[in-house]
Amino acid sequence: MKVNGKHYLTIWMEGSTVYMIDQTLLPFEFRIFEAKNYRDTCKAISAMIVRGAGAIGVAAGFAMAQACMEGQGGGYLDYIQNARKEIEATRPTARNLFYATERVFNAALKSVESAIREAIAIAEENIQDALAIGKYGQAIIPGKARIATQCNAGWLGFVDHGSALSVVYAARDAGKVLFVYVNETRPRSQGARLTAWELHHENIPHTIIADNACAYFAASEKIDLFVVGADRIARNGDTANKIGTLDKAIIAKEFGIPFYVAAPLSTFDVKCQTGKDIPIEERDEDEVLFQSGTDAEGVYRNIRVSNPGSHALNPAFDVTPAGYITGIITEKGIIKPIEEEIVKICNA
Amino acid sequence: MKVNGKHYLTIWMEGSTVYMIDQTLLPFEFRIFEAKNYRDTCKAISAMIVRGAGAIGVAAGFAMAQACMEGQGGGYLDYIQNARKEIEATRPTARNLFYATERVFNAALKSVESAIREAIAIAEENIQDALAIGKYGQAIIPGKARIATQCNAGWLGFVDHGSALSVVYAARDAGKVLFVYVNETRPRSQGARLTAWELHHENIPHTIIADNACAYFAASEKIDLFVVGADRIARNGDTANKIGTLDKAIIAKEFGIPFYVAAPLSTFDVKCQTGKDIPIEERDEDEVLFQSGTDAEGVYRNIRVSNPGSHALNPAFDVTPAGYITGIITEKGIIKPIEEEIVKICNA
Repeated sequence: MKVNGKHYLTIWMEGSTVYMIDQTLLPFEFRIFEAKNYRDTCKAISAMIVRGAGAIGVAAGFAMAQACMEGQGGGYLDYIQNARKEIEATRPTARNLFYATERVFNAALKSVESAIREAIAIAEENIQDALAIGKYGQAIIPGKARIATQCNAGWLGFVDHGSALSVVYAARDAGKVLFVYVNETRPRSQGARLTAWELHHENIPHTIIADNACAYFAASEKIDLFVVGADRIARNGDTANKIGTLDKAIIAKEFGIPFYVAAPLSTFDVKCQTGKDIPIEERDEDEVLFQSGTDAEGVYRNIRVSNPGSHALNPAFDVTPAGYITGIITEKGIIKPIEEEIVKICNA
Repeated sequence: MKVNGKHYLTIWMEGSTVYMIDQTLLPFEFRIFEAKNYRDTCKAISAMIVRGAGAIGVAAGFAMAQACMEGQGGGYLDYIQNARKEIEATRPTARNLFYATERVFNAALKSVESAIREAIAIAEENIQDALAIGKYGQAIIPGKARIATQCNAGWLGFVDHGSALSVVYAARDAGKVLFVYVNETRPRSQGARLTAWELHHENIPHTIIADNACAYFAASEKIDLFVVGADRIARNGDTANKIGTLDKAIIAKEFGIPFYVAAPLSTFDVKCQTGKDIPIEERDEDEVLFQSGTDAEGVYRNIRVSNPGSHALNPAFDVTPAGYITGIITEKGIIKPIEEEIVKICNA
């Protein structure tokens, strides 16, 4: 997608350096973060400089390739095995991360060059998958749809285009007139910061709402459908996604509003029988207790927005049981969230 | 309740000055705001220096009494009629506001002294009602209850004790061991700022959670019941309360968790047939787009936490239909949210 007229990807690799848009600074500052080795890339994943299931997967693949380059020579296998463990410990929930480390690690057993080619292939597939998700998904968007989304499943969460927002962009390109309700998505506000930034740059009409206001707008018949991303989809269709997704799915069910998940097949984990098998990352309480942004002079600041002395619990994801999900939009078409269709499409 | 060992009320009147704890500065600074005339008090209500249905009602009663003192002499009736309109325009949703202006205005038709006595009586009743709500409500709290609440329905939202939190305090005083899930309650974060501050001062174990995490904890069977406050209760039991209450009620229903509303009878509006008749206040978008708090040096700052150029919609309340509500805890006992019981208790 374009930023100030120039085409950018969310993440890319040149030589042994991984470049990524620093998403902790957006929407206030547009800066490229350079990860010179796999440990830098690991830190970038943990600190959410790069985030979103698709982009995390690509970053993990690049990190694995970096480790291969660094570990050439004596002790190569030990080095890349240890690196794989470190990479996989950065964020436990996103399936795409493990999908990527496995592919690049297996290629690395052949050669460093194979590992690099595999990591780049994962990034290129990510772009094509996102485009295809948009193509299939836009078919279910009504002509004047008011769409609600959670977190950021946009191009920033992939290498390009996104998952849920790829559907929005494709529907817009098909001439549909859209309005997007952007749930703020506390605690890290990826909705208010990243999704709103994307939609603003794409001139797509939208409004930010507090996460608390979602039921109000659903009850007021102002939301036609939900489209959200996913971090891991179990064999039975249970879907882990950013915390608050379950709240929105329950609201959607209550008011009879279609609730779609958009995700590439690399997000599916058929070894997880149900959502109960998906590990949920718990992050630092300070993400809830503090908030960052810019003051009137444009200075970036971190402030306490809660009672000093009180603590917080901060699960980063929740699991939406398959029964709440109308359909899953993949790069091979839209499927029902049931084992039969999931296993079939994953093996196709 | 006590602050640093000294007993405080949320709001009180001495002579023609209304004093109130400035709730826009809590939990970072404890300061008393002085409203020297009714217009100051109106501004304090609009700016949420005083907030919470009960405290708003008392503030409105005091403002009406201030107007009577100011308007003595020629043009008295015109003056207090205009003042009443101004006071009632400050915040449209809270029933207690209109309840108080009506009572004090009617008394003012007799004499200024009657108006002052009536305003003070409303404040004193508010304290007694809150205590009685706690007494009745604590009976439904299990011995080791994990309670979720929304916004602040504590002593800061009343003159003392609170509604939902009065139940918590009474249950604690009855020897019950409690844990409270404090929903942050964006956009103004009354949960993270005020409820957490109250519970911290009362040494009641609690955790702040992002509003988004409520379904996660409900699905994890970590919430035994919800107790929330109310800003206006219609004749059929439909209840307006802080935005996000409906989301929580829907989640409670989905997981079979009891959902109680705690409110004095002054919050009931039997002239509203259903929730559709309750006006919903829309507040400034900046409450969503910005957030305030203190930096590491303790300096109070307001920062943008959202994409510049994007807008927000900011409904301050939502309506929870009666069907979601297990019971309403009042100062005269616990009732079902049905017209028959509501009309009976309001006329008792």
